[in-house]
Amino acid sequence: MQKVSLAPKLRQFSERWSPRIVGELNGQQIKVAKLEGDFVWHHHADEDELFLVLRGHLTIHLRDRVIELDPGEFFIVPRGIEHKPVTQEEVHVLLIEPVSTLNTGNVRNEFTVDSPERV
Amino acid sequence: MQKVSLAPKLRQFSERWSPRIVGELNGQQIKVAKLEGDFVWHHHADEDELFLVLRGHLTIHLRDRVIELDPGEFFIVPRGIEHKPVTQEEVHVLLIEPVSTLNTGNVRNEFTVDSPERV
Repeated sequence: MQKVSLAPKLRQFSERWSPRIVGELNGQQIKVAKLEGDFVWHHHADEDELFLVLRGHLTIHLRDRVIELDPGEFFIVPRGIEHKPVTQEEVHVLLIEPVSTLNTGNVRNEFTVDSPERV
Repeated sequence: MQKVSLAPKLRQFSERWSPRIVGELNGQQIKVAKLEGDFVWHHHADEDELFLVLRGHLTIHLRDRVIELDPGEFFIVPRGIEHKPVTQEEVHVLLIEPVSTLNTGNVRNEFTVDSPERV
């Protein structure tokens, strides 16, 4: 039962595409991540995933459209929908997704993080 | 499948203590609310509730401690824990809680909102 300050949590790591767990409620985890460059196309079969931008500009490519997000904006990727986050700069995001959601969803590659750290 | 911008959502209403639904994922709702003054002591029997401050300073009284939150900070009130949010000014928050969570939890009074609007 402690409050969480997002900025200090984000200062604790520098790895891109490697979400850190900062909270948990009702079976969901709150994570923060630093994103930069192109991620991989993937989907999460059973999990909706929320991206809230804290810093920078995030582009989320879907197969049929492109979502552009600035700080204070969020997008929920519904389960089953293929998506590919892309950034031109360092971007900080808050993520909400069920416990144990794999960052690369149905794909396993060099971006895959099996056990996200808590910070 | 549309992005959500928090600031415009908050400009759509002025009522205090009346959360508006802005998103839903995995059985949870994302809400925004304007808080000002003293709320009522209450708890949610089966639901954890997250308060993320977007603007202003929020005090969450618990029976055994006090949590002070500035913008960019959040606190998760575990299920069953009595709490009372208090502010000295207008405060904007993002809330995460299960679908159908009642804002006043186990209490029913003039603050109770049975069917939060979507904005």
